[in-house]
Amino acid sequence: MKHSGLITLLTDFGLEDPYVGMMKGVILTVNPDARIIDISHHVKAGSITRAAGIIRETYPYFPEGTVHISVVDPGVGGKRRAIILITRSHLFVGPDNGIFWPIMNLHQNIKIIHITETKYFLPDVSNTFHGRDIFAPVAAHLSKGVDPFEMGPVISDPVKLQLPAPHQEGETLHGQVVRIDHFGNLITNIHRKEIEEFTGGKTPIIRLEDLLIEGMRGIYAECGKGEFLSLFGSSGYLEIAVNQGRTSDLLGLDEAEIIGLEVEVSLGL
Amino acid sequence: MKHSGLITLLTDFGLEDPYVGMMKGVILTVNPDARIIDISHHVKAGSITRAAGIIRETYPYFPEGTVHISVVDPGVGGKRRAIILITRSHLFVGPDNGIFWPIMNLHQNIKIIHITETKYFLPDVSNTFHGRDIFAPVAAHLSKGVDPFEMGPVISDPVKLQLPAPHQEGETLHGQVVRIDHFGNLITNIHRKEIEEFTGGKTPIIRLEDLLIEGMRGIYAECGKGEFLSLFGSSGYLEIAVNQGRTSDLLGLDEAEIIGLEVEVSLGL
Amino acid sequence: MKHSGLITLLTDFGLEDPYVGMMKGVILTVNPDARIIDISHHVKAGSITRAAGIIRETYPYFPEGTVHISVVDPGVGGKRRAIILITRSHLFVGPDNGIFWPIMNLHQNIKIIHITETKYFLPDVSNTFHGRDIFAPVAAHLSKGVDPFEMGPVISDPVKLQLPAPHQEGETLHGQVVRIDHFGNLITNIHRKEIEEFTGGKTPIIRLEDLLIEGMRGIYAECGKGEFLSLFGSSGYLEIAVNQGRTSDLLGLDEAEIIGLEVEVSLGL
Repeated sequence: MKHSGLITLLTDFGLEDPYVGMMKGVILTVNPDARIIDISHHVKAGSITRAAGIIRETYPYFPEGTVHISVVDPGVGGKRRAIILITRSHLFVGPDNGIFWPIMNLHQNIKIIHITETKYFLPDVSNTFHGRDIFAPVAAHLSKGVDPFEMGPVISDPVKLQLPAPHQEGETLHGQVVRIDHFGNLITNIHRKEIEEFTGGKTPIIRLEDLLIEGMRGIYAECGKGEFLSLFGSSGYLEIAVNQGRTSDLLGLDEAEIIGLEVEVSLGL
Repeated sequence: MKHSGLITLLTDFGLEDPYVGMMKGVILTVNPDARIIDISHHVKAGSITRAAGIIRETYPYFPEGTVHISVVDPGVGGKRRAIILITRSHLFVGPDNGIFWPIMNLHQNIKIIHITETKYFLPDVSNTFHGRDIFAPVAAHLSKGVDPFEMGPVISDPVKLQLPAPHQEGETLHGQVVRIDHFGNLITNIHRKEIEEFTGGKTPIIRLEDLLIEGMRGIYAECGKGEFLSLFGSSGYLEIAVNQGRTSDLLGLDEAEIIGLEVEVSLGL
Repeated sequence: MKHSGLITLLTDFGLEDPYVGMMKGVILTVNPDARIIDISHHVKAGSITRAAGIIRETYPYFPEGTVHISVVDPGVGGKRRAIILITRSHLFVGPDNGIFWPIMNLHQNIKIIHITETKYFLPDVSNTFHGRDIFAPVAAHLSKGVDPFEMGPVISDPVKLQLPAPHQEGETLHGQVVRIDHFGNLITNIHRKEIEEFTGGKTPIIRLEDLLIEGMRGIYAECGKGEFLSLFGSSGYLEIAVNQGRTSDLLGLDEAEIIGLEVEVSLGL
């Protein structure tokens, strides 16, 4: 793998505290030529599922040879392992808590390293901030070309993530709302391919509680202002939106309320 | 134009979602040497006017040869064109919805390109995220020195933006509050030059609803703590502030309420 | 001092306005090779104390030869001086209002320069935005190797900062909550060393109003979900946390309410 010199960061640390800044300082101390790109530091605190989805969706847009640090780490300091995931073209560094599970499932011939070689850590490792003390310096060494296989043994039993998957029951395809985006759109876990296979070209009816939407639109502006619509978002997932409005506000939903919120797709009569 | 290798980003995407990270990945895949600077991703969702003001105010501080991507794009996926604005020393990439109108009005000899050459786009262009699929790769190619005139035809009918402009009525100069900044200061659209011309050196009286302020101050600390004052902000516009306080909170104003909020300047008797 | 080419930024400007973007443009205009790292722009508005703590905690993680700009500057435009603090391995640029006082106290042989040489400023200096007009260009010149001693005279009377310090009264060690972090943890000003010296190896009892916690934990997960615990955070300070919960929410505390909030450490009977 050719190294791009790029390191991405995805955390739930927020930007008020100096935590992200400290990680960047550590990276640049180890590899002064590293270039650091923030994916997000606003993952919902502790939500491994959310972080797993974001890094899975985002990493393919980065050049080959990029090192991705993802730290949503409620088990920090405990027995959970620190790992490196090696795919054909990218490296991932973070806790072994399922955060890279969706990526592990995408690829053949991945390798997973349990990071045990402490010479790549900061000299003092805290119990509460492995992002700074382990993941940042390890990623920086990787971005300089250190062989990941020198950082610890290969393992084959990474922690898995239970992700709700769409499933068909009778004449209905069931899925879930998985996040509300910045514009208030509801993003589901039902991919375009699943809907196309399910409908076979017929017009789907999308139901979210009392809301019924007929058919898929191509763009927001195909509807009148304030009208609900279904479309496939920029990553290919079914999305419920409102032209020039915030779906989440109009439906009175916030983050806490979308857990388990079902979306049903059926065919018109 | 000599290229600086810099690309700035201004969007209304927020930082919770991976949208901005995806754009950066796309840019760095096309031009691994690009250096990306965030101007803001917290433009009020859909506010072309706000984004137009921010990029107009900010771009002159960047080096010659910088490429500026500005994406507030409620019409994404529809008929609105994607454009490049070429001035003597900067390039701007974004939707043709008025976002660059204030900059177009600043310069003679600008050129505007309608971006039609799809070989500079991502292979798959979504309907909802041209920031990632069109604007990011186009800007990255421009930053590598691709000639903008190879990306599509020159046009001369860009979409204009209706911006409220200060005007004099009788003995009063009327303007508007256009934004509340992070410190709660109210920023107006009345420039220092307009006030100086209007007052001819006399002391202005500034009125905002029931609030009357006499004269302009140089700095916040010229007043007592908690006192209202008028001053010219760092971009030269009349600003209503409170020494060590938040004007917006003290007046009970939020973003939604400043729309159309008038500021009047008159001369003392 | 060898220059790292790195410039860090710490401000209370937020990210909605173009202020931070303008500073970056100015830096890159003066030094096109500068690499800029954000520490935070979400310091509580006007809180010199908070900014002083963050830069003190964060700068040691950056490489030697980094220039740190810290701007929380309620006295901007007034008589307060602009300064450069020179330590053996780092440079700091900002207002002379105490923001670098904790760093000044760490080191022997520091030098402080009162920045007076206007040729390193922007041509027009506003009264309200020295971050852009003075600190950014000065830091950029420093990062290019300009000698700080050419920028103004050495001074020896910097403004000091009054910081609450832990103190022992009878059998009790008194400290304060100084901030709530992104995870809702309460961070105090009592360092591990002070507690270890105080307890001499015995089990401490931590009291915060009605809440009593016995003993120190190593990690969050040593407790049951939702249980309160005390531990030493990643910078070595006593922290009150809840396993998988937000301490601040559970105690009904927000930023405004932690001012003067006492934490007491005593020894069990």
